[in-house]
Amino acid sequence: MTTPTLLVLDAEPLPRLGRLTGRVRIEHADESTLAERLPSADVLLVWDFTSHAVRGAWPGTGPRPRWVHTASAGVDHLLCPELAASDTVVTNARGIFDRPIAEYVAALVLAFAKDLPRTLQLQRERTWRHRESRGLAGTRACVVGSGPIGRETGRILEALGVTTALVGRTARAGVHGPEDLDRLLARADWVVAAAPLTEATRGMFDARRFGVMQPSAHFVNIGRGQLVVEEALAEALRGRWIAGAALDVFATEPLAPDSPLWELPGLVVSPHMSGDTVGWRDELGAQFVELYERWAAGEPLVNVVDKQRGYVPGH
Amino acid sequence: MTTPTLLVLDAEPLPRLGRLTGRVRIEHADESTLAERLPSADVLLVWDFTSHAVRGAWPGTGPRPRWVHTASAGVDHLLCPELAASDTVVTNARGIFDRPIAEYVAALVLAFAKDLPRTLQLQRERTWRHRESRGLAGTRACVVGSGPIGRETGRILEALGVTTALVGRTARAGVHGPEDLDRLLARADWVVAAAPLTEATRGMFDARRFGVMQPSAHFVNIGRGQLVVEEALAEALRGRWIAGAALDVFATEPLAPDSPLWELPGLVVSPHMSGDTVGWRDELGAQFVELYERWAAGEPLVNVVDKQRGYVPGH
Repeated sequence: MTTPTLLVLDAEPLPRLGRLTGRVRIEHADESTLAERLPSADVLLVWDFTSHAVRGAWPGTGPRPRWVHTASAGVDHLLCPELAASDTVVTNARGIFDRPIAEYVAALVLAFAKDLPRTLQLQRERTWRHRESRGLAGTRACVVGSGPIGRETGRILEALGVTTALVGRTARAGVHGPEDLDRLLARADWVVAAAPLTEATRGMFDARRFGVMQPSAHFVNIGRGQLVVEEALAEALRGRWIAGAALDVFATEPLAPDSPLWELPGLVVSPHMSGDTVGWRDELGAQFVELYERWAAGEPLVNVVDKQRGYVPGH
Repeated sequence: MTTPTLLVLDAEPLPRLGRLTGRVRIEHADESTLAERLPSADVLLVWDFTSHAVRGAWPGTGPRPRWVHTASAGVDHLLCPELAASDTVVTNARGIFDRPIAEYVAALVLAFAKDLPRTLQLQRERTWRHRESRGLAGTRACVVGSGPIGRETGRILEALGVTTALVGRTARAGVHGPEDLDRLLARADWVVAAAPLTEATRGMFDARRFGVMQPSAHFVNIGRGQLVVEEALAEALRGRWIAGAALDVFATEPLAPDSPLWELPGLVVSPHMSGDTVGWRDELGAQFVELYERWAAGEPLVNVVDKQRGYVPGH
């Protein structure tokens, strides 16, 4: 058997693929060389998960990798129609980000409940101003997205005493269907966007949905920026339709220095870091090595994306 | 039976004592009139729990109230030697603050793990800077204080996946004794001060103890300011002996505008608000009314402070 070629769409720092040394020919590509190198690759590792280069390079001519793995949970940045229609298997980093992102959501929800951003502002002003904060136990959350990240977020919020409803693409045990969404939004103290970006979810948080929420509600997006109509969120915050929000993802990343989002009242902006805890890159590399062992042995892969739906179907 | 006199050391807003109307003569005192009014009172309600006026007024002459209740968990602000030696029963607000304070500690611990203060600073600078944050699950906490607040704090941290050791005045089931403290501090990621202020705990967080902690450790004080040698904490933060701290309580409150604590690197300053969630004053009032019903009926009071130890002995 010839040595398979693994093409890596690079990002710094490079993945640690120790166990694969000598068993695979590793080639590297960046956004400018991806298209010309695709035909020689058996496997494509999308290590630079911020890049949309696969969408542009895939529709070209010649052979295509039989397997594409992305070191991310979302696959919207690579799933072009030609890849979706092909026989190529796509896998993702399902599992690595669940707990970090759930903790991140808990951190933001608790920070809002305890008015922490305001505390830090008053500290800068050297102002001692006592306020009453909010108890978290007994409040209600609506988590939109019932994949592993949404479910782990639900678990951590429940552990903090928050009554949490999950909303998925279809109703099933423990998960509400889209038909319940507006009713759940209307009574939620915390609304969390944890859905994959698909044609069904793009722009789902629009002016109407922010209008349904309580004025005391807070919104947290750790999914994809395009789940939110950013202008509608801006209007909702300026008009105090909702009390606050935290965005870790944006329609355009990095967020431009002149974006009005940096200074919206009640908005916390973070640079797409919710899932990235110390050691995460090594975990992503180790996960790929494990998948590669299965692939090389002819065993079925796990974390296989349903390319029509745009995510890994689960429970 | 004559109508008992309830003297209230006032603070705004006044307590809601609805059910007691007509059954008790309510008199009011402030810091300047407390001493002269004490002899006429059967019961003293220390509603202004920020005041140290009882310490000054109690040693005077004449009859003294048979019962003193403070709308706070700590009793250090009223326990003068003369009150401690008297037959007067002292009760506190045990129970009201447990969950809010535990949530507050969780909020600060998560904010540190996820580097939230830095995120807010970068947002003000309109700077997109990705960082790796810390996973909370699997980290270790040491909670000093094994009363209801410390125990609830331990429960919420455990629910977040943090391995938590409680340290109390004496070792018992589930609680370490002081002999284990330095060893536990040395391996803790999160150190929480939740002890009552007594002669045994005053200044216990000093230069030596901050020196024992890991450079990556964070310290949170929701107990009393005097548990901490503030100059030692300042030195520990400036010298990076520890990574950060959050103080909700201070040796002198409110913190003076020119205090160096406002601007210490890695320090979050909040205005003694960790236990004060929406509705807390009504809960404090209702708790006193319940205790009063017991007292008026000749039943044993609960939340009775051991005046020698300086707290309500528990489990």
